Amino acid sequence: MREVFQQELHEVQDRLVRISELVEVAIKNATTAFRKSDAALAESVIDNDSEIDSLADSLDELAIAILARQAPVARDLRLIVSALRMSTSLERMGDIAEHIAQLARYRFPEKVIPKGMRDTFDEMAELDVKMASLLTKLLRDMEPAVVTQIRELDDKLDALHASVFDMVLDESFKADRTAVVDATLASRYHERFGDHAVSITKKVLYFISGDFSETAHSSSESASE
Amino acid sequence: MREVFQQELHEVQDRLVRISELVEVAIKNATTAFRKSDAALAESVIDNDSEIDSLADSLDELAIAILARQAPVARDLRLIVSALRMSTSLERMGDIAEHIAQLARYRFPEKVIPKGMRDTFDEMAELDVKMASLLTKLLRDMEPAVVTQIRELDDKLDALHASVFDMVLDESFKADRTAVVDATLASRYHERFGDHAVSITKKVLYFISGDFSETAHSSSESASE
Repeated sequence: MREVFQQELHEVQDRLVRISELVEVAIKNATTAFRKSDAALAESVIDNDSEIDSLADSLDELAIAILARQAPVARDLRLIVSALRMSTSLERMGDIAEHIAQLARYRFPEKVIPKGMRDTFDEMAELDVKMASLLTKLLRDMEPAVVTQIRELDDKLDALHASVFDMVLDESFKADRTAVVDATLASRYHERFGDHAVSITKKVLYFISGDFSETAHSSSESASE
Repeated sequence: MREVFQQELHEVQDRLVRISELVEVAIKNATTAFRKSDAALAESVIDNDSEIDSLADSLDELAIAILARQAPVARDLRLIVSALRMSTSLERMGDIAEHIAQLARYRFPEKVIPKGMRDTFDEMAELDVKMASLLTKLLRDMEPAVVTQIRELDDKLDALHASVFDMVLDESFKADRTAVVDATLASRYHERFGDHAVSITKKVLYFISGDFSETAHSSSESASE
C-alpha cells in the first residue's frame, strides 16, 4: 500500500514534468511560427493544445484521488496541493502559445510584426523558450537555484514588453492599425508566459520549504501597460 | 472535533464568498473609474487589491490545513479542492480590475476610450458587474441555474470584445495610437473577467456533481483577437 502511494506521488511529479515539456514545445513552435510566418507550424500548436488540457485534467484527477485515498500529510500533501495549483498555470501557458499561433495564422502569409520591432520580439521569444526549458528542469529537480534564473528572465521580459509599448505608442513609428493592435497583444502574450512561470516558482518554493508566504498570490505581474 | 470540522468547511465557503464580494466591488469601481476618468476611485481599486490577494492566500492556507488535519472525503474534499482551484481565478479577476484602474489613472484627466467606442465599453462594464454579482450568488448558494446565466453573459462579452477589434482595426475610425493600444488592452481585460467566471462555474459544477469532466481545463476563452 505504501509502495503504491509512493508510486502515485512519483506519477504526480512525472505528469507535471510531462505537461511542462509539452508547454515548452508549444512555446517554441508558437514563437517560431509567429516569427517566420509558418502557418503549418501554427496549426500544429493549435491542434496540440488539447493534449496539454487533457493532461492537466488527468493530473488534477490523480491528485484528488490521492487526497481521497491516501490522506497525505507534510511534504506529500504539499506536492499534491502544489500540483493542483500549478496545473492551471501550465495549462494557461499552453493557451497563450495557442493565441500566438492564432495571430500567426490570421496574418499569414504576412508577418505579424513590422520590421522595426522584430528584433525585440525575437528576443522575447528566446527568453520565453529558455524560461520554459528552465521550468521543466525546475519541476524535475525541484532545485531553488533555478527559481532565481527564471525570475531574472521574467524581469528581462517585462523590460522588453515595456519597450514594445514605447514603440507602438510613438506616432512616428511606421505601422498600420493592424500591426499596432497585433504587436500590443503579442507583446502581452509573450510577457504573460513569464508571469505564469514566476507563479509556478512560488508553488515550487512552497513545496520545498513548506513556507506558505513564498506562495503568496501577490501579483508578480508588471503593470507596464 | 466533528463540529470544528463542519465549522471549518463553512469558513472555507464564507471566505470564497467574501473574496468574490471584494472582486465584485473592484470590478464595479474599476470600470466606473475607467468610464468616468475618476483617478481617486482608480487609486482605491489599486490600493485594495492587496486585500483580495491576502484573503486568497489565507483561504489556501485554511484549505491546506483542513486537508492535513481532517483528511476530508467525498463532498467535503471536493469543496476544499474547488476552493484551492477557484482562489487563483478570483485573485486574477482582482488583478484585472487593477489593470483597468491603472489605465484610467495613466490617462487621467483624459478618458481612455474615444467617443465612438464608449457605448460598447459601457455595455461590457455592465455585463462584467452583473457577472461578478452572479458569481457571488453562485458561491453562496451553489445553484447550477446561475452557471447558465454566467455563461450567457460571457458569450455576450465575447461578442462585444470582437466588435471592439472590428472598430480599432478599421483605419477610418478616428483614434490616435494611444487610443488604439488602450482600447485593445482594455477590451481584452473586460473580456477576461468572463473567462475567469466561466472557469469558476466549472469548479462549482464539479463541487456539486463530483463529475470531473465538468471541470475540464479546456479553454473557455474566445480566440477573437
